[in-house]
Amino acid sequence: MQELIIKTKKRQEVIDITNKVNDIVKKSKIKEGLCFLYIPHATAAITINENADPNLCLDFLDALNKLIPQGIWKHDKIDNNADAHIKSAIIGPSEVIPIKNSKLLLGTWQGLMICEFDGPRERRVIVEVK
Amino acid sequence: MQELIIKTKKRQEVIDITNKVNDIVKKSKIKEGLCFLYIPHATAAITINENADPNLCLDFLDALNKLIPQGIWKHDKIDNNADAHIKSAIIGPSEVIPIKNSKLLLGTWQGLMICEFDGPRERRVIVEVK
Amino acid sequence: MQELIIKTKKRQEVIDITNKVNDIVKKSKIKEGLCFLYIPHATAAITINENADPNLCLDFLDALNKLIPQGIWKHDKIDNNADAHIKSAIIGPSEVIPIKNSKLLLGTWQGLMICEFDGPRERRVIVEVK
Repeated sequence: MQELIIKTKKRQEVIDITNKVNDIVKKSKIKEGLCFLYIPHATAAITINENADPNLCLDFLDALNKLIPQGIWKHDKIDNNADAHIKSAIIGPSEVIPIKNSKLLLGTWQGLMICEFDGPRERRVIVEVK
Repeated sequence: MQELIIKTKKRQEVIDITNKVNDIVKKSKIKEGLCFLYIPHATAAITINENADPNLCLDFLDALNKLIPQGIWKHDKIDNNADAHIKSAIIGPSEVIPIKNSKLLLGTWQGLMICEFDGPRERRVIVEVK
Repeated sequence: MQELIIKTKKRQEVIDITNKVNDIVKKSKIKEGLCFLYIPHATAAITINENADPNLCLDFLDALNKLIPQGIWKHDKIDNNADAHIKSAIIGPSEVIPIKNSKLLLGTWQGLMICEFDGPRERRVIVEVK
């Protein structure tokens, strides 16, 4: 089991971790198998999205903010981040990606990303290659 | 392969099953590995969310009801639960969580939960530890 | 590692692949285990939903279109499919389903489906049985 540490810089951010995870896959020497990812945080998530146009990550955050605005929820009376929790629960903390030729078998336009919904914070990503 | 039976009590409900799944993990005697969860029901789902403030689960259901209201869908002419099916398809029936030191490697604020979207019913959760 | 090729016919479509995946599971001769699915495309996704009433798949697409309309995003200036990318990121490209008695352990009303959000295209689905 490996671990990545990612420092986020904004309240909301999508950060591409494809290269970092591919480095772990390469070092594992597993040519064909599965890569399991898990983010142990209740206001972050893991997603897979196009990484060629950076505007698409902004569109993704924009869409989620339109659907789940900040500051209108019961939990906001305790801690003003209910929107971040709800977004995390919808997007989800885990992903499983096949490995082929010692690399993540991602599509041409797919990038592996973490979603920060309540940063800036230091986030851990658990990576298991089997 | 293990199975949990959870009896839900309301139409919509989020129920924490972290302790029940940790008991299965402990009994498996697997110290480090992966826990696979699957809910074989088309109007329920598995999610991971904060479990400290119970209001957050109400906020989560409230958000989903704002986004996907009941009673406006084609399927509702047959069975008045299209909203439950759509919510289940979005949240998803499966989750994979790493195991470390014979426990689910959840974040401090993460709880493992089933979502009931069309209860009350008896729900099964399949748990596989590897 | 197996691969399915699915030709989609519309811009948006939900296609049941349960039987095709069950054929792969049967041929693998694995009686009990896990089936991992992954779609390597940034404008498609994998979901599990009721397959008895075809209207439900239309309701699902209708709900997503209400939440994430086409043509209002930054990325649409480059390629008019931002809505497809956002929907894919929310629904997700992977699913893990238990296998029992050489079959997917799906619920009575659950079908395994791919979501086409920017077709018609030829789509690959990676299937790993363990």
